[in-house]
Amino acid sequence: MHAITIPEPGGPEALVWDEVPDPVPGEGEVLVEVVASAVNRADILQRQGFYPPPPGASPYPGLECSGRIAALGPGVSGWAVGDEVCALLAGGGYAEKVAVPAGQLLPVPGDIDVKHAAALPEVACTVWSNVFMVAHLRPGETLLVHGGSSGIGTMAIQLAKAVGARVAVTAGTKEKLDQCAELGADVLVNYREQDFVAEIKQATDGAGADVILDNMGAKYLDRNLQALAVNGRLAIIGMQGGAKGELNIGMLLNKRAAISATSLRARPLGEKAAIVAAVREHVWPLLAGGHVRPVVDRELSMAEAAQAHAVVEAGGHIGKVLLITP
Amino acid sequence: MHAITIPEPGGPEALVWDEVPDPVPGEGEVLVEVVASAVNRADILQRQGFYPPPPGASPYPGLECSGRIAALGPGVSGWAVGDEVCALLAGGGYAEKVAVPAGQLLPVPGDIDVKHAAALPEVACTVWSNVFMVAHLRPGETLLVHGGSSGIGTMAIQLAKAVGARVAVTAGTKEKLDQCAELGADVLVNYREQDFVAEIKQATDGAGADVILDNMGAKYLDRNLQALAVNGRLAIIGMQGGAKGELNIGMLLNKRAAISATSLRARPLGEKAAIVAAVREHVWPLLAGGHVRPVVDRELSMAEAAQAHAVVEAGGHIGKVLLITP
Repeated sequence: MHAITIPEPGGPEALVWDEVPDPVPGEGEVLVEVVASAVNRADILQRQGFYPPPPGASPYPGLECSGRIAALGPGVSGWAVGDEVCALLAGGGYAEKVAVPAGQLLPVPGDIDVKHAAALPEVACTVWSNVFMVAHLRPGETLLVHGGSSGIGTMAIQLAKAVGARVAVTAGTKEKLDQCAELGADVLVNYREQDFVAEIKQATDGAGADVILDNMGAKYLDRNLQALAVNGRLAIIGMQGGAKGELNIGMLLNKRAAISATSLRARPLGEKAAIVAAVREHVWPLLAGGHVRPVVDRELSMAEAAQAHAVVEAGGHIGKVLLITP
Repeated sequence: MHAITIPEPGGPEALVWDEVPDPVPGEGEVLVEVVASAVNRADILQRQGFYPPPPGASPYPGLECSGRIAALGPGVSGWAVGDEVCALLAGGGYAEKVAVPAGQLLPVPGDIDVKHAAALPEVACTVWSNVFMVAHLRPGETLLVHGGSSGIGTMAIQLAKAVGARVAVTAGTKEKLDQCAELGADVLVNYREQDFVAEIKQATDGAGADVILDNMGAKYLDRNLQALAVNGRLAIIGMQGGAKGELNIGMLLNKRAAISATSLRARPLGEKAAIVAAVREHVWPLLAGGHVRPVVDRELSMAEAAQAHAVVEAGGHIGKVLLITP
């Protein structure tokens, strides 16, 4: 088969569509013939050499895919060859085939195109596990999403609205904020022109956000704490603004607040399967019913992975950038 | 009645046993004739002028008491004059009488002396709300308790052991660690001589503590994070080592860990009542059955409150220092 390889870490041109051996599904795994994968920020770090695949994972990038089951490994039940699926991966999505633990498979929901289903696993699992399983966002509460127009952001807006929460977002352009509003966001903050702490306070009668989904890490740590309501929960899923920052424990204590930080990739199989099962139970019906939809910025051929990375690095996209197998 | 007043903030001598007007129980409150109160670190901060009582709270110190119900305010049911109780207070425990919202009352459990029941409300509510309601300590997990011989520490050891967890403690003397061991602590760390990160790692085959109950704040923030296991939860309830510290968000994310910080006093009545109800459901049967007991360092007369504060400030005590009404 073909896969995107990284002979030498570097810029987007480091991604090479090359012939490699086919993966073989092990015990409890299925082989998926990939229709599409999607670009995640972790793929860019992996390409640059900063984020090696965890032990046992495929060496090729790609943390999610959609496609059709081509073969079942030993001990797999509940799935059949030919099923249209999407999957959360520890790597290897940028390829024509990938072996996946069965616990990380999801059916293609409702009448969503199998191609577009590649936009779902990472964002659905990340948002559900952080905003709902860890931070327990409840109906009537306010969620602040940084980077509201990202793949994660567009899913977070829709899921929070679907459960009856209020949603505030930050983004850097009017076009992005318009897209967030179209998905249901109630409070729009242009972080280039406005102070999100002041805006979220004003929008909540001074109370602040009950849950914040953050991808900036250190750079926003103190302001996120300021923007948080009493009993608020800050869920950190990225460190685009640095990994070490001063924590005002006094403010955390006065607000009886909590900070969590997670990533999906390094989790053991059992934890991933539990998240995927929760997503299937809670998020999949919303997708099947048309209440939540994948947001796709553009589709590129897998051989154009370098261009796809350049698009994501430039940051002008809205939603997910898909990579389609030729 | 008499109460401890603080005419001018200052050292222990600032506490003056003086005649003051009797409190009157309002809607939903009961009047308790106080038998005993207990010293909390927050009382010392209040005496020093650093921790003013929250709006509506009694101006006198004392966050817990035991005694007998002397009168019921309007709208109180389920309690009767003469009932032996203990109570979580927003203040006013260092007095002959105190008015308490009924939701913060607990019966004196089992055959525990009414006097000793004054040692229970703060530690039971603090430990249960943080270690169990927020950090969800589970059977088989490891809890690290800093200050294992404190009132909080002695309750945390016993409750964690009672639910089947493993307990590690830090303390500063062999005598204190011996007392922790007697209460059931499995791993004893003398923080003056040993590195608690290394000790907890060694005691858990490198895994670390699943939950840490911390009273040090900034001083221990980074080492607590190092000592935490994957999926670990750090619960901060004090800032004796400072209020601002550098947070390694990268380590938090790699461990998929969480940090929470809470205090009891400033919570609204509904939250306090919910905690008290949970404590009555989960902790009270353990006390009534003799599986968990109040640990009392010494009993002093309420007029000797200055001496009691000096004892707690010196830090040589084990468990709670009680103040008995004359």
